[in-house]
Amino acid sequence: MRALVLLADGFEEIEAVTIIDVLRRAGVAVVTAALTSRSVRGSHAITLEADASLDAVSNEDFDAVVLPGGMPGSKHLRDDARVRALVRRAAESGKLVGAICAAPIVLEAAGLLAGKRATAYPGSELPSARYVEASVVTDGALVTSRGVGTALEFALALVERLAGAETAARLRAAMLVEA
Amino acid sequence: MRALVLLADGFEEIEAVTIIDVLRRAGVAVVTAALTSRSVRGSHAITLEADASLDAVSNEDFDAVVLPGGMPGSKHLRDDARVRALVRRAAESGKLVGAICAAPIVLEAAGLLAGKRATAYPGSELPSARYVEASVVTDGALVTSRGVGTALEFALALVERLAGAETAARLRAAMLVEA
Repeated sequence: MRALVLLADGFEEIEAVTIIDVLRRAGVAVVTAALTSRSVRGSHAITLEADASLDAVSNEDFDAVVLPGGMPGSKHLRDDARVRALVRRAAESGKLVGAICAAPIVLEAAGLLAGKRATAYPGSELPSARYVEASVVTDGALVTSRGVGTALEFALALVERLAGAETAARLRAAMLVEA
Repeated sequence: MRALVLLADGFEEIEAVTIIDVLRRAGVAVVTAALTSRSVRGSHAITLEADASLDAVSNEDFDAVVLPGGMPGSKHLRDDARVRALVRRAAESGKLVGAICAAPIVLEAAGLLAGKRATAYPGSELPSARYVEASVVTDGALVTSRGVGTALEFALALVERLAGAETAARLRAAMLVEA
């Protein structure tokens, strides 16, 4: 299994690193891709080196595309036509599409949320979705979540879909995450 | 308030980033320092750019010194005489010293745990401590914690000590961390 995690300047660092770390623990091959410079600075001044540029990987096949939240990172993702096209193509071909915190606004802008159950950080504008206030909300291939405090549950939900419930349960125990 | 977070190759990324991010949200000036190269690679192949080298900051004053866990990162910290001296000096001058996951082995090697209440990742060797199985354990200026699943509680405990309970409560709400 392969997952693409998109990083824009102003991403939320705990959310991004939790997704990458937990998926890699599950044996998923994670590629992090930056919109512009490979060196990407989060909203709390933590700089990550992305594995690739978005243009270098945008024609590759991934089993999941995952968007960390944070501001202005989520707006940068939403305002990039390449990102909107990529998540639309992923969703249309039945791939898993995940977004946490403010990042569900990218799915909204890509037209993926019409009538779909979804969640996000409080105050995020998702006018076309059926908003659900829960830590993790799944509707078909879309998985959404709310923020830093739900990032581990979000990552474990992605693991369950990509690597199975047993792997998710094993990781939960190894990371000392309470059920 | 100023905090020093030490990064060695093989650090646990979720733990490190949670500490840095949450302390910065609290208004604590966090400096990340690398033992060798400024570019530090975590145990799940995530590379962070440290703010400084350890040698460049080892004579500066900090209100807290915090050690993320992970392997082999925790062993690298433990086996570095500069790190042991630095945490010993911090503890002796009453500064806050925090360690999570496997990193309490550094405090053990520095001789700081004799008779002290402490916790760590299951299986970590802390022969001189009074081991307590709790998410976060405080004994005087020492704050220890268990792993990825307890990293947010650990960071919030450090915030409470450095910036007060009100700030910790505000961040808990903003990050959607359940009490």
